[in-house]
Amino acid sequence: MFQQLGLIGCGLMGGSFALALKRAGLVKRVVGYSKSPSTTERARQMGVIDVEAPSALLAVSGADIVLIAVPVSATEATFKAIRHLITGNMLIMDVGSTKHDVVDAARRVLRDHLGSFVPCHPIAGKEVSGVEHADADLYKGQQVIITPIERTQVSHLRNAEKVWTAIGCHVSQMSPESHDAAFAAVSHLPHLLAFSLMNSIAGQPFGQEFLALGGPGFRDTTRIAASEPKMWRDILMANRHELIAQTREFQRTLQEMQDAMESGNGDALEALIAKASKLRAGWRMNRKS
Amino acid sequence: MFQQLGLIGCGLMGGSFALALKRAGLVKRVVGYSKSPSTTERARQMGVIDVEAPSALLAVSGADIVLIAVPVSATEATFKAIRHLITGNMLIMDVGSTKHDVVDAARRVLRDHLGSFVPCHPIAGKEVSGVEHADADLYKGQQVIITPIERTQVSHLRNAEKVWTAIGCHVSQMSPESHDAAFAAVSHLPHLLAFSLMNSIAGQPFGQEFLALGGPGFRDTTRIAASEPKMWRDILMANRHELIAQTREFQRTLQEMQDAMESGNGDALEALIAKASKLRAGWRMNRKS
Repeated sequence: MFQQLGLIGCGLMGGSFALALKRAGLVKRVVGYSKSPSTTERARQMGVIDVEAPSALLAVSGADIVLIAVPVSATEATFKAIRHLITGNMLIMDVGSTKHDVVDAARRVLRDHLGSFVPCHPIAGKEVSGVEHADADLYKGQQVIITPIERTQVSHLRNAEKVWTAIGCHVSQMSPESHDAAFAAVSHLPHLLAFSLMNSIAGQPFGQEFLALGGPGFRDTTRIAASEPKMWRDILMANRHELIAQTREFQRTLQEMQDAMESGNGDALEALIAKASKLRAGWRMNRKS
Repeated sequence: MFQQLGLIGCGLMGGSFALALKRAGLVKRVVGYSKSPSTTERARQMGVIDVEAPSALLAVSGADIVLIAVPVSATEATFKAIRHLITGNMLIMDVGSTKHDVVDAARRVLRDHLGSFVPCHPIAGKEVSGVEHADADLYKGQQVIITPIERTQVSHLRNAEKVWTAIGCHVSQMSPESHDAAFAAVSHLPHLLAFSLMNSIAGQPFGQEFLALGGPGFRDTTRIAASEPKMWRDILMANRHELIAQTREFQRTLQEMQDAMESGNGDALEALIAKASKLRAGWRMNRKS
């Protein structure tokens, strides 16, 4: 389907995409670039990429598909680095967890080439990062949200849908704004809660003793607290407007449960638990609507 | 080791204990009682218990080991129902997730037989309940916290340790008060957060659309929100004093992250994430100290 993938960012997300495309026979050659030369070298040694590019610009040169898999805060600089070699036939995608800021950066930088860029968010990941965890199955069975804008070229949009579908993803479309509101709620807020929970307990006089007693529930609710700090700083800051709104709504809901406990109103507390329990028992990941 | 287990409450926790004891050859006969006759009948049909008792009192008759596996709010009534047939040689244990209230109930009701009661909290469970989910492996490899009081008989304490160890548990001891503070932090608060997260998102105009986009992180952080409402109402209410203190501490920590976002202080936010990430990456369940 494609001759050459230009991969900018050879970490977990980018590396897994390259492996998935190779395994599916969708690309002949992968030219990769990472900010850290040792990462690029490691990616080549592992067979994730075929050729090491000395710059983002040279990774794009000659590519017919480009994946930008860098921290969201580095997206704008990446657009600037590559814009001189972008051609109209080149499909450019990202994998950023926020979309409004990425689309804004694309508008500012790409100008005439804006139509080549298809903003994507594959809902996949691990709490570990780095090319050594790259996995051809990372995206399989997962959702990918594409957030096209008015200038996105339909041919590129269709190709983006095809490539994600070909590696096993369920593709859907939203506006960048709706995307960011939704992910503030179901991804960024849960991360914020998991980070806060760890810090809240550890900051107490017997915090370490308490933590040693955590069971399976604690393990699961805090798993994502181990996520990479720099990456999550970028995501939370990029989407902080929506996230702050979600956090306030959450705090109101938490306060409601706390009020029920403080006033000894067990019935009110049980009604709130029952509502949550029913919702969660009926929830399934990747349910097609 | 034991002749007869008197099982009061034939649900997930009680049923799994009976199955584990039987498989380990630690008990000859299990006499069971549940509030709902259909549960007791089902437990017998499944081979979880051997004999159905028509009352809690008759489940205790002739037993040398008794497990009370009822909601914590029903513990005091259970003590009252069985106290006339308790003997000095009978080991009585519970599996309640809170211990201060259970110990208080025991002090009020058991009096001369208080020494026979060994308060236990096995840190095991599933987000589903009922005897149909009973599993001989539920407790295997899990921690059990025993919270003896000054009147607990040492011989019973040793036997309680032996029986949990024999079915594969790691046993440790704490005071009832320390136990409740610790579990407010690592169990009850995570449940409260998971309940609140579900309700907070679902209560918004596009809540259902948002929920449909949840990925693996959302799945894991909310798993325990599907827990049984009545049981968790009881636990949260029984331990609400400690839980409210933990919730306030959590809200302070969450506010600290929100302040960093609101003031645009990415460095402060990253430092808080890094602290949480390091803590969680270094955490292991059931680590022996």
